[in-house]
Amino acid sequence: MSKINFFKKRINKISFFYPKFKFINDLIINNIKPLKFAKKNDLTFYDSKKYQELSSKTKASYCLTTKQLAPDLPKSTETIIVKNVLYELAIVLSKIYIDAEIDYPDLSLNKPRKSGFKKVSFGNNVLIGKKVKIGKNSFIGSNSIIESNVVIGKGCVIGSGVIIKNSIIGDDVVIQDNCKIGQKGFGFIPTKGKNIKLPHIGRVEIKDRVEIASGCTIDRGSIDDTVIGKNTYLDNQVHIAHNVQIGSNCMIAGQVGFAGSSKIGDNVSIGGQAGISGHLKIGNNVKIGGGSGVIRDVKDHSIVMGYPAVSLKDFIKKIKN
Amino acid sequence: MSKINFFKKRINKISFFYPKFKFINDLIINNIKPLKFAKKNDLTFYDSKKYQELSSKTKASYCLTTKQLAPDLPKSTETIIVKNVLYELAIVLSKIYIDAEIDYPDLSLNKPRKSGFKKVSFGNNVLIGKKVKIGKNSFIGSNSIIESNVVIGKGCVIGSGVIIKNSIIGDDVVIQDNCKIGQKGFGFIPTKGKNIKLPHIGRVEIKDRVEIASGCTIDRGSIDDTVIGKNTYLDNQVHIAHNVQIGSNCMIAGQVGFAGSSKIGDNVSIGGQAGISGHLKIGNNVKIGGGSGVIRDVKDHSIVMGYPAVSLKDFIKKIKN
Amino acid sequence: MSKINFFKKRINKISFFYPKFKFINDLIINNIKPLKFAKKNDLTFYDSKKYQELSSKTKASYCLTTKQLAPDLPKSTETIIVKNVLYELAIVLSKIYIDAEIDYPDLSLNKPRKSGFKKVSFGNNVLIGKKVKIGKNSFIGSNSIIESNVVIGKGCVIGSGVIIKNSIIGDDVVIQDNCKIGQKGFGFIPTKGKNIKLPHIGRVEIKDRVEIASGCTIDRGSIDDTVIGKNTYLDNQVHIAHNVQIGSNCMIAGQVGFAGSSKIGDNVSIGGQAGISGHLKIGNNVKIGGGSGVIRDVKDHSIVMGYPAVSLKDFIKKIKN
Repeated sequence: MSKINFFKKRINKISFFYPKFKFINDLIINNIKPLKFAKKNDLTFYDSKKYQELSSKTKASYCLTTKQLAPDLPKSTETIIVKNVLYELAIVLSKIYIDAEIDYPDLSLNKPRKSGFKKVSFGNNVLIGKKVKIGKNSFIGSNSIIESNVVIGKGCVIGSGVIIKNSIIGDDVVIQDNCKIGQKGFGFIPTKGKNIKLPHIGRVEIKDRVEIASGCTIDRGSIDDTVIGKNTYLDNQVHIAHNVQIGSNCMIAGQVGFAGSSKIGDNVSIGGQAGISGHLKIGNNVKIGGGSGVIRDVKDHSIVMGYPAVSLKDFIKKIKN
Repeated sequence: MSKINFFKKRINKISFFYPKFKFINDLIINNIKPLKFAKKNDLTFYDSKKYQELSSKTKASYCLTTKQLAPDLPKSTETIIVKNVLYELAIVLSKIYIDAEIDYPDLSLNKPRKSGFKKVSFGNNVLIGKKVKIGKNSFIGSNSIIESNVVIGKGCVIGSGVIIKNSIIGDDVVIQDNCKIGQKGFGFIPTKGKNIKLPHIGRVEIKDRVEIASGCTIDRGSIDDTVIGKNTYLDNQVHIAHNVQIGSNCMIAGQVGFAGSSKIGDNVSIGGQAGISGHLKIGNNVKIGGGSGVIRDVKDHSIVMGYPAVSLKDFIKKIKN
Repeated sequence: MSKINFFKKRINKISFFYPKFKFINDLIINNIKPLKFAKKNDLTFYDSKKYQELSSKTKASYCLTTKQLAPDLPKSTETIIVKNVLYELAIVLSKIYIDAEIDYPDLSLNKPRKSGFKKVSFGNNVLIGKKVKIGKNSFIGSNSIIESNVVIGKGCVIGSGVIIKNSIIGDDVVIQDNCKIGQKGFGFIPTKGKNIKLPHIGRVEIKDRVEIASGCTIDRGSIDDTVIGKNTYLDNQVHIAHNVQIGSNCMIAGQVGFAGSSKIGDNVSIGGQAGISGHLKIGNNVKIGGGSGVIRDVKDHSIVMGYPAVSLKDFIKKIKN
């Protein structure tokens, strides 16, 4: 599954994209990947000391970074020194990947051909893109749209009015009515008059036995993937931003929102309307009270509550004052 | 209306479902009902001292409960003593009711037959299940789906892209675009690796002259019904969980969320983004400020605000400190 | 653009609508407009001292108001003295404008005629009303509905399952899947048993280069318009109530909610799940933290956070106590 790419690439050497830079090795660029997953022939980016450890271990051939951060990178990685890493990332992404900066609607949709989907039950007016795979004993409800290249496992129940794109979905997954999964996230370089849209080349990966209730939105990753772990259940109207990674066996109540790139452990339960800020690490077996606003990392086995969220003990002390 | 059942049942005697238990009377089980509504030949459940008073008055023939709680039940009710009441409830529900644990899409949908719906105006691509009833002078917008057995009164205006199932809707009700009404709620027995889904056999009942704005989600009841009282108005993106019962003449502003099984009185107004925890009782003529998190019962005529919500007086004192 | 009216009017003299009042000049009523935009032959309304300055400058021929407020109006404006201004406004609106108090679905929808939309790309099952205009190089995704008289500029990308009505949309606008734009807002005169619905005759105006992510709801104005300024970006599940006016270059994160009639300046950034109360003025270059509840006006260049929102400095002081 890890090799499925939803966006077409323009293959070229690094010198084609950066003609003014000099490179020791002028290699073909295969992909743009995060520090952790980049391999030889990949371009990565490093824009914050927060990722220093990952930066020192990257296998990328090339890395967009600043003068200050460049020394953290291994010698095997050639650096492309820029002032604004995310700006340059947006520019090179749009040069390499085609149509990833705007969700152009899939114009290749058609009614599902019965021969192509054995033992799959379809409602009325279902629309399916090219090269979609759906496992046996799955159901797709009426008016749902499955865009090209999406993979859905067996025994899945997809409701009505659901829109899925750029996603890989496991077995026995339930997605209730009207969920929107795999669309572009909220990423851009703010520029007065005309923001620069950050192309989103990541995907949504939903593991086995996940259940997602009505009206949720799950954005695909920008460079990395957005991931929902096995047997995790989401209630109605949950919003999951790009690159969020949620572990297994989690329970996420209604109207919870996750900002981008946070990592949530296993067995985490989150009460209704809670919000999780971006780039946080929430440990395993954490409980987060309803309505909380989590703005710091949370350790394993913690119970937190409040806005901003603190330990349950401190929260109770606070409200008694 | 109270007799409409949306789920098929397997009719059998209690000894069929519990062969290892001994019963004084081995009756046919008609329904699984909450303590309050269960009658002779019904199975009920009792899992918390909170419902002691209701338990003592139940008319159910059989009750799932624990050893500790069993003595509260009347002698006319035979007890089925178990360790985990909700777990056993989920198991027996799935034995008696068919397809209530997952929202399988209705595969019997069709274009509305003009002969079947006199004086009803339909937009384009409307899909209607079997045995749907719609009153005269009602409108159903384009791309909306009304699943089998749903009842809609007269003079209703249902917008576009609306999905309604397992629901009974009164007269002169307005439901704006893209609402999702009657889907399964967020109920399951958490089990690592594979949660046990709680079948939802309740319904949504929407009374006369209710107005529901765009993008709301209203889950059907699990055992009981979810109810919206007469002339109550909901703004956009409101989330109402299973078994919530809202009175008449209420005003619920945008993005408010209700957790399961709370009861809201009449003439209640709730400001935007407020959250109401589960199993609460909110009185009549209550005002709840926007953004509040209500975690305790609220008495008649109260004004509450804050997170957690306190009386307006206490809230103002608190924010002045 | 300013002359597009989405609702049919019954043209008549003021004495026709108010036969019991005596008028110096008995003019034809062209429109009902807010104090600021009303001209000769328009009827306006004035119900709160908050709008005293606007009231003194209105060009309206007639104004619904109370005895107390009437002296603020210029002599050129004849007053119609009533007890409940909003109630009387609802009544006269429903007399002048047809079908503006309920969103009756557009029953004139059809597949787009290719001859009518040159260089526009349509997905499957798109439904278009009468007199819709769409600029060249725009895309409309599958299952989307564009109701009659809507104007969409060139280079726009409208996703799938989007519903647009009563709206005027600029160039290069992106609207992601399942947004609901232009529906009636949450406005009514509460009356036990049967609320009086406030007809909504305003529109939604979305300026050039705006981006709106999935599942947002943007209500049209009641009397005034709802406006989103140039290059403003909205994340998923944002709720914008009637008459809200948002400036240019703003960034609104996921699940933010705006109550009615607030004005937001330029270059404002708002964190996820924040709520903005009604009738507020938020200045330019303001930053509002995620989860905040803003209940007072905010001056230019401020950073505010908390519930209720205070300056960042005060917020940090507060949480340290």
